[in-house]
Amino acid sequence: MPNSKKDIIILGGGLVGSLLSIYLAKEGFQVTVYEKRPDPRIEDLDAGRSINLALSHRGIKALTEVGLAETVKPELIPMMGRIMHDQKGKTNYQAYGKKGQFINSVSRNRLNTVLVKEAIDEGVVFCFEHLCEKVDTRTNEAFIRPINGGETLITTASLIVGADGAFSSMRRSFQYVPGFNFSQDYLEHGYLELTIPPTKNGDFALEKNGLHIWPRGHFMFIALPNPDKSFTCTLFFPLKGELSFESLQSQEDIAQFFEEFFPDIVPIIPNVVEEFKKNPVSSLVTIKSSPWTVNRCLILGDASHAIVPFYGQGMNSGFEDCYELMKMAKSMDFDWDKLLPKFSENRKKDADAISNLALKNFIEMRDKVADRTFLKRKKVEAALHDLFPDLWVPQYSMVTFSDYSYSDAEYIGKLQDQVMRENRAIWEDRDPTPSDLAFIAEKFSILMTASLKAHL
Amino acid sequence: MPNSKKDIIILGGGLVGSLLSIYLAKEGFQVTVYEKRPDPRIEDLDAGRSINLALSHRGIKALTEVGLAETVKPELIPMMGRIMHDQKGKTNYQAYGKKGQFINSVSRNRLNTVLVKEAIDEGVVFCFEHLCEKVDTRTNEAFIRPINGGETLITTASLIVGADGAFSSMRRSFQYVPGFNFSQDYLEHGYLELTIPPTKNGDFALEKNGLHIWPRGHFMFIALPNPDKSFTCTLFFPLKGELSFESLQSQEDIAQFFEEFFPDIVPIIPNVVEEFKKNPVSSLVTIKSSPWTVNRCLILGDASHAIVPFYGQGMNSGFEDCYELMKMAKSMDFDWDKLLPKFSENRKKDADAISNLALKNFIEMRDKVADRTFLKRKKVEAALHDLFPDLWVPQYSMVTFSDYSYSDAEYIGKLQDQVMRENRAIWEDRDPTPSDLAFIAEKFSILMTASLKAHL
Repeated sequence: MPNSKKDIIILGGGLVGSLLSIYLAKEGFQVTVYEKRPDPRIEDLDAGRSINLALSHRGIKALTEVGLAETVKPELIPMMGRIMHDQKGKTNYQAYGKKGQFINSVSRNRLNTVLVKEAIDEGVVFCFEHLCEKVDTRTNEAFIRPINGGETLITTASLIVGADGAFSSMRRSFQYVPGFNFSQDYLEHGYLELTIPPTKNGDFALEKNGLHIWPRGHFMFIALPNPDKSFTCTLFFPLKGELSFESLQSQEDIAQFFEEFFPDIVPIIPNVVEEFKKNPVSSLVTIKSSPWTVNRCLILGDASHAIVPFYGQGMNSGFEDCYELMKMAKSMDFDWDKLLPKFSENRKKDADAISNLALKNFIEMRDKVADRTFLKRKKVEAALHDLFPDLWVPQYSMVTFSDYSYSDAEYIGKLQDQVMRENRAIWEDRDPTPSDLAFIAEKFSILMTASLKAHL
Repeated sequence: MPNSKKDIIILGGGLVGSLLSIYLAKEGFQVTVYEKRPDPRIEDLDAGRSINLALSHRGIKALTEVGLAETVKPELIPMMGRIMHDQKGKTNYQAYGKKGQFINSVSRNRLNTVLVKEAIDEGVVFCFEHLCEKVDTRTNEAFIRPINGGETLITTASLIVGADGAFSSMRRSFQYVPGFNFSQDYLEHGYLELTIPPTKNGDFALEKNGLHIWPRGHFMFIALPNPDKSFTCTLFFPLKGELSFESLQSQEDIAQFFEEFFPDIVPIIPNVVEEFKKNPVSSLVTIKSSPWTVNRCLILGDASHAIVPFYGQGMNSGFEDCYELMKMAKSMDFDWDKLLPKFSENRKKDADAISNLALKNFIEMRDKVADRTFLKRKKVEAALHDLFPDLWVPQYSMVTFSDYSYSDAEYIGKLQDQVMRENRAIWEDRDPTPSDLAFIAEKFSILMTASLKAHL
């Protein structure tokens, strides 16, 4: 089968696949995208399952690079901080960052539609309802089957990218290659989505510019705003056990559960019990793999590193994959054979870092955000950041609002933990003075220097 | 499709599949085994790749249970200990256990043939050259394709067991099931097999009753005896890097490598350079999964827990799987729905333990067996075992010669490590007296008691 050096195939026309296709088209590549789902411009893919995402700095940076920052803006609702709801319905606000720093609620499907339109304008060819069955990694051939019948097409290109999600067909093909390391790990929690509709007056039922959290120890409920003034809600809850999706079966038990734990939700979700019974329970998986490349095939985004959603970095890290890949590709003159293994090796450690942080953040969100010491520490760290903006950047800010690599953010966060722990006496039970804060900052600075020396 | 409660399908007629079929046939089940390879009674499956295994207590116990201990005896060559060869060709002997304790070299293919013959005598039906393409875990249907053409057969039974090895087709089907955790991890070392033929006089070229090891730090060479007076040898060696399979390419480099590191091997392997160039390099993978069961499907042996070969427990643990499964099945009246999840949960922790121990033993075999302190410790532990045979069983003996569960062996071994480390002054640079040994044993006994209490 003939193919030019400028031909590229992308498996998967989701968020990462369609963004990458734009990057590549802008560099003059002829890109074909095979996507098993229908055209999102025509059909609402998430009908009944309006998954929401939190777009932040890394994602915006990657969109800006191809001139899309303004294009997506109308789709975004800024969320300035966490709004915690306690069991009595009382709320507590916690800003995500400094003034002017926020994350953005966006609908997966609407963002996907914007990206597909843009890609098509750039000359990318989309073959919707075409499923990749497998990839032959020795010959770089993808086996593509039209969903609606017809013969399987065997096709090749100078590069085939698997941006085909957590259950990637390309990755399944990699699993037959000796030396390909892989793991899939499920949480014991699953999730179920519910919707808070607009009020009768056509308004948001809760404060609009925040991410609402109902932390309940071993489980939690969250709500993100939509442009149509509804909220998309998710209950993260054990799959099995004493209080779990398995245990909550009867109408009475479900009603009682919501009344006990989420009394302020009951009045704003009509038929919450029916919705709960009707909607599917989904699972949460962490996927790790290495290397991300075999021959001229590359897996990207969820296909190589699916993570749990608790740091709001799944899409952002996938978008940053595209940004980093293209930066390296340009600097290495698109010499794929050389750059793919190097990209995989470099990027893998950042993917591992955000994967770990996302798992850790589940405990923070469902449990610690209601903890006095935790909230106090957040405050002290914000004060440190104000006083020493370059030296002390809270881990959440490094991950969400900065270009620190994820692995640096993970590492530096551990040093911050250590310093905060060792100097607990200064901040835990009293309000630290500026000189207290300077003392903590100095201790941290010494630790950072020592650690840098040890790594040289 | 009709099926009786007494119908069982086993995928894979290797060592574990054929042994399990014998167990089940003896309980009155009608067992059909589908195996993709040809009948081992007719064809030598490992022609050119005569893999050797070390059969020890757990494997023998499982064979004895179905009356096969005597049947396999003619195939076994006892190995009483490790025979280490240093770079000058000098040897050093280290017994595996107490007098009368040994492990047994056996050819995979010859043992497999014995088991298949026995299974057929028990009424098991073998369909050779039949490949399982996938399993539908919802309907308990296996899709079986005859290798030599013909239509795919869709079949079911009251239980389907995947004993189809490290690259199990049933496990691949499990990977689509939410909640199925799985990992595959490759070592950076691969292996290559060579053969030491009998001498011109028709004799063994090396001492017959031992497992020969040439430990060389980051790599090693081993040799196991065969009934035809040859030895099957394996070089475990880095796949890439300065000194590796990748780096050794020219005839000169290979010849020089063997002369430098294995001078006593060169005269006894004719054409060692040609053999090295001709034989394939294979990889070494660790596979973990959980749960081992979905619906009425169960994965067993390498299919659920493939381990590296350095503790000689791959086959033994698979055989013990059969033994433990049948023990539980009998005690629970073959109520598969109840017993499969319980078996998986119980056995998984032992599989994890032997998996960890096997990885650790690679370092021991290739590096530490040449280390003075390590050898001294082995001696002291043997003396402790003599003096306190029930209290102090060396970890190798717990794993190889006892019924301790693998997880207990791993745990107790850690406590032994701790005691030996903490009391180093007593044994490292001098010969401990009986009262020194009693002191160590007492410390260990105290630690064990404290640890048991902590677990209650």
